[in-house]
Amino acid sequence: MQISELVRRADVPLATVKFYIREGMLPPGRSTSATRAEYDEKHLDRLRLIRSLTIVAGLPLNRAKKILAVIDHPEGTIYDMLGRAIEALASSNPSDESAGDETNRYPRAAAALAALPPTYNASNERMAAFAQLDEALLAAEEAGIPITPARLRLYGDHIMAIARAEIDGMPAGDPEAALQYAVLGTALYEPILAAIRRLAHQNLTVNAR
Amino acid sequence: MQISELVRRADVPLATVKFYIREGMLPPGRSTSATRAEYDEKHLDRLRLIRSLTIVAGLPLNRAKKILAVIDHPEGTIYDMLGRAIEALASSNPSDESAGDETNRYPRAAAALAALPPTYNASNERMAAFAQLDEALLAAEEAGIPITPARLRLYGDHIMAIARAEIDGMPAGDPEAALQYAVLGTALYEPILAAIRRLAHQNLTVNAR
Repeated sequence: MQISELVRRADVPLATVKFYIREGMLPPGRSTSATRAEYDEKHLDRLRLIRSLTIVAGLPLNRAKKILAVIDHPEGTIYDMLGRAIEALASSNPSDESAGDETNRYPRAAAALAALPPTYNASNERMAAFAQLDEALLAAEEAGIPITPARLRLYGDHIMAIARAEIDGMPAGDPEAALQYAVLGTALYEPILAAIRRLAHQNLTVNAR
Repeated sequence: MQISELVRRADVPLATVKFYIREGMLPPGRSTSATRAEYDEKHLDRLRLIRSLTIVAGLPLNRAKKILAVIDHPEGTIYDMLGRAIEALASSNPSDESAGDETNRYPRAAAALAALPPTYNASNERMAAFAQLDEALLAAEEAGIPITPARLRLYGDHIMAIARAEIDGMPAGDPEAALQYAVLGTALYEPILAAIRRLAHQNLTVNAR
């Protein structure tokens, strides 16, 4: 198809499509003349994926790019790739410079790890989610409602059961599909979980009236 | 204390304190002369609460105001108040105008409700979280990873167990403290849960390598 049809079917502006090509996020079409190029269904799929990552999941461009890079350069097992993709999703990344003293840099997350079930103890300190946890714990502390070890344990147990079902549900056999599912699922099922938690709170308070 | 001390201890700029007073979010001090007013610990607590709601929890001003109004005008049981506060927290509110046809307005949330455990069935349609759930389900659907009824059931079970512990953990006896705990907890423990979920994903993928 020509670029005009690609634009129409993907529902993405022409300037944006050209921008993605310049940024290396979308491969250029196959040149058929000096001024024309041909695009196919793979381009359309890719555009839809970029749209999901940036517009639907709301990821900034540099993080969307990192995730595309993981998909484009499959290295190691699907689990290695998954680890790198989840790492790219996180809002704050532990810098490599001060590797080794994460316990000092993220004291709240380090303390929380001791309260979480033992399943959580595999080399967490180097993970991006570790910095994110520390930040979230600090915010609760500043608001005067620090979380208790008992609550952390409870959260940890239930969330691990949820995460296990999510990882088990990955499409098998197709690494690219598995990665897309994992990355989009992490980002897009989060608001679903948050909404269900609010519904649960409301149900419990209604029933207690 | 004088306003300069209040500003210093609360770590909020003077102009912001004056703005909160004008907006009726913070009561004015007790006038001691034509140009001076006296503030006390209650003003300090209130400023810290406003700071938690707006800066730490990131709520827009109009929603923070609604929550303060619930705290300032205690009506009904603590559970009634809690319901109103959680309602004010939600990002989108079902409007009253078209009350009654929420199933049509939020078809995805309505379908999800049928898949969730029966604990979730108490008059959910009128709740703010219902609109939020519908929006989140739509985003996942648009990205090509619609959620399955089995996954919803699993999420619903674990999240209900989490929500039950949260509601049970409310400070008893002091309605104002209970409300603050509930509102801040809903907003501030959400990022903690999200970070733990990412840690869980990373642990599961590391262990599978």
